[in-house]
Amino acid sequence: MNTQPDSLTPELIARFAAIVGEKHAVTAPEDIAPHVMEQRGLFGGTTSLVLRPANTDEVSKIMRLATETKTAIVPQGGNTGLVGGQMPDKSDRQVVLSLSRLNRIREIDLASNTATVEAGVVLQVLQEAAAAEGRLFPLALASQGSCQIGGNLSSNAGGVGALAYGTARDLCLGVEVVLPTGEIFDDLRKLKKDNTGYDLKDLFVGGEGTLGVITAAVVKLLPMPKGRELAWGAVPSTAAALKLFQKANELAGPSLTMFELMERRPLDFVLQHIPGTTNPLTEESPWHVLMEVSSGRSAQDARELMATVLSEAYEEELLADATIAQSESQRAKLLHLREAMSEAQKMEGGSIKHDISVPVVAVPEFIERAGEAVQQVVPGARVVCFGHMGDGNLHYNVSQPVGADAVEYLRHYGAMNEAIYAIVKDLGGSFSAEHGIGTLKRDLLVATQPAIATDLMRRIKAAFDPAGIMNPGKVI
Amino acid sequence: MNTQPDSLTPELIARFAAIVGEKHAVTAPEDIAPHVMEQRGLFGGTTSLVLRPANTDEVSKIMRLATETKTAIVPQGGNTGLVGGQMPDKSDRQVVLSLSRLNRIREIDLASNTATVEAGVVLQVLQEAAAAEGRLFPLALASQGSCQIGGNLSSNAGGVGALAYGTARDLCLGVEVVLPTGEIFDDLRKLKKDNTGYDLKDLFVGGEGTLGVITAAVVKLLPMPKGRELAWGAVPSTAAALKLFQKANELAGPSLTMFELMERRPLDFVLQHIPGTTNPLTEESPWHVLMEVSSGRSAQDARELMATVLSEAYEEELLADATIAQSESQRAKLLHLREAMSEAQKMEGGSIKHDISVPVVAVPEFIERAGEAVQQVVPGARVVCFGHMGDGNLHYNVSQPVGADAVEYLRHYGAMNEAIYAIVKDLGGSFSAEHGIGTLKRDLLVATQPAIATDLMRRIKAAFDPAGIMNPGKVI
Repeated sequence: MNTQPDSLTPELIARFAAIVGEKHAVTAPEDIAPHVMEQRGLFGGTTSLVLRPANTDEVSKIMRLATETKTAIVPQGGNTGLVGGQMPDKSDRQVVLSLSRLNRIREIDLASNTATVEAGVVLQVLQEAAAAEGRLFPLALASQGSCQIGGNLSSNAGGVGALAYGTARDLCLGVEVVLPTGEIFDDLRKLKKDNTGYDLKDLFVGGEGTLGVITAAVVKLLPMPKGRELAWGAVPSTAAALKLFQKANELAGPSLTMFELMERRPLDFVLQHIPGTTNPLTEESPWHVLMEVSSGRSAQDARELMATVLSEAYEEELLADATIAQSESQRAKLLHLREAMSEAQKMEGGSIKHDISVPVVAVPEFIERAGEAVQQVVPGARVVCFGHMGDGNLHYNVSQPVGADAVEYLRHYGAMNEAIYAIVKDLGGSFSAEHGIGTLKRDLLVATQPAIATDLMRRIKAAFDPAGIMNPGKVI
Repeated sequence: MNTQPDSLTPELIARFAAIVGEKHAVTAPEDIAPHVMEQRGLFGGTTSLVLRPANTDEVSKIMRLATETKTAIVPQGGNTGLVGGQMPDKSDRQVVLSLSRLNRIREIDLASNTATVEAGVVLQVLQEAAAAEGRLFPLALASQGSCQIGGNLSSNAGGVGALAYGTARDLCLGVEVVLPTGEIFDDLRKLKKDNTGYDLKDLFVGGEGTLGVITAAVVKLLPMPKGRELAWGAVPSTAAALKLFQKANELAGPSLTMFELMERRPLDFVLQHIPGTTNPLTEESPWHVLMEVSSGRSAQDARELMATVLSEAYEEELLADATIAQSESQRAKLLHLREAMSEAQKMEGGSIKHDISVPVVAVPEFIERAGEAVQQVVPGARVVCFGHMGDGNLHYNVSQPVGADAVEYLRHYGAMNEAIYAIVKDLGGSFSAEHGIGTLKRDLLVATQPAIATDLMRRIKAAFDPAGIMNPGKVI
């Protein structure tokens, strides 16, 4: 596949620029900069060209030219991905394709409860547009103010709403995709049931832009809940948290719309580093949960349901203390405590991160075993564990020991990963629950997945992108 | 791909038989017969060999030998498929691979709410095993007493439970698949979130046995509802039925677990032809609905929820009359009225069937336009419409005019299909909502889907099954 040109020549740049117009062919280094460095500074690349097409037709023309000239194309949304999937490599032979200008909500269909949106629509914009029509678009991510639907779908994003509403894949009914050749696959269906052949949609969703460019999608909307109650609770142990989750699930079923687990340490980091935050509870506790119930019936019903869950939890000593948000502003504050954990952790030096999932029931065992393993790899390293317990998905991050040298600490990245992933594997889990593979975990995918799985993935890649121009070097 | 042997030679049969043992290599015509004719007599084939392996390892050996000898293999579950996907062709060059003996429930994991089941487990057996542990396996089909999980997954079956719980695809977390080469792809995960590369599972699910043989799967179980209420109601029109669905959905949300729409005629056919059935309502009505709400909270809660839905529906004149099942036996009777509709229709002569879906909101328009189209194709033909309205999925069948000649009537099959599918297409619908493609709709798939879609499907088929031995002639 090494048939790309040696670099992006002025002639080639001019041909691409002619498709989108000079104004939207970004070549000035200062304008390119935000597209070639990922927000945390972990993944950077080099390119002389960022294309900002206006519509699907221009994307199609870009891909046609890319095929003709064997130019590698790297699709990019809000540049919030955490595994490098949206970054060009350092060769200056890859063109970044920004979908940001494909930002129209083409339709909100209230009768069908669907929205047809372009790839560049910012997640929060869609949430707000849906809310204005009395509908809920339940995908919710810390990055929702800047991440885009195309990226959400390409990475099959999860987030706090996945517990009740599913991941991005579950929320997507149909896609519009530009293939590497420039052909447009228009599959913008609003159908809940459609068994006309192989499930192509779900290859593009989660395909991280390696099989085609998602340019638009039909997503599900839901009725806006009539009541939502959010509680922050202190639990004595991970075992109690699991029992509380099972209890809440039993009592609330599909009305249990969030169940997050957080260690004491990330909360302390937030309280310490993020201005304006306060501890919602007075007592110290090793673990906390953030739990939401939603009711389609009434606000009163949601209140009663939460009250039942909490009172049964107290009775069985699963909860030590809890507080319920009494206003939208209190709600926002509780959510912010959880969402700010990644940000707060940055201030504590080097961090080795893991986005893992295990069967929900194995969460306590994972946390216990991983905690021991961490100390064996780097004594004094500080576990910073929080995540979507209801999905068995934890962000199991490990900060450097206090006062350690970050560079020295990060030399243990491989050994730490290895120790954690061995436990994950033993428990039947996944080393990439919701962030995807990108470049970060590509070698890991190949090294740890059954050979037959990666072989099938390679065959799919070759079948869809025989020239190897579609986000090369990512996933497989 | 025409490299298969001319026929199944005695030597080849002996080699296959050696894998499963003589007893499970079926060669007697009377024993083969049930495997080569589909239950309604619409699809028949010819083979000299039906293999009944005991386990995944034997399936693997069969596929390895099939690859070596370029022998086509047709996987078969309960032989209840409606599009011919499980039938060998008439060449006597294809071996039927019955999964019936892979019938172990390997595990029911109450903590994770999953079941790991082999392909040959009969759906109802799994339902009952789950119920014995206080769990619901919500896939529900008229054929559940004989259809098998492997077939359910391969065809991505839908049924009455799909409204709230999704199709077979949505209920499946992981699969074990034997590939055409005999390699075993063990992907029996219990994870809700796993973004490790392309979504391979969803190619096998819905792949109709053309990409590999599903030998086992991990499926989701749900808490058994504490209360379920089933109501049969008379609605004055399809527009009222749509409004009733929207109202019920608004009030009950995920607790609305069934919403079926039925024309008067299929009910009359049932009352006339199926012994022991009675009309649950006294008044005549052009349309009926069968509606269920389930509550995870209590039986009382389900009763109140159903009462609210019905009272609001009466108030807005969406319902003319309704009755609620007061016992398990009454419940079974109401369900039987719906499930017997296909069976009853057989007694009315030739039938031209359509398994279509449209956006839910377009159901009334579809029914109106299709009704007119039918009369233009065959004046006097009798529409027999029933189905899963909540999913926009209708079984839009058309019986011959009273007294017409069935053979003569069925000559209009193509013209009738064409007229109906044109309306479906115009409304953004699907000509195969839940039954799949098989052989019945293969040409239709190619003729009506975008060329790029069928091209991508062909590429996937070639990538997974380069020798073309895996259920050839089906889907694509």
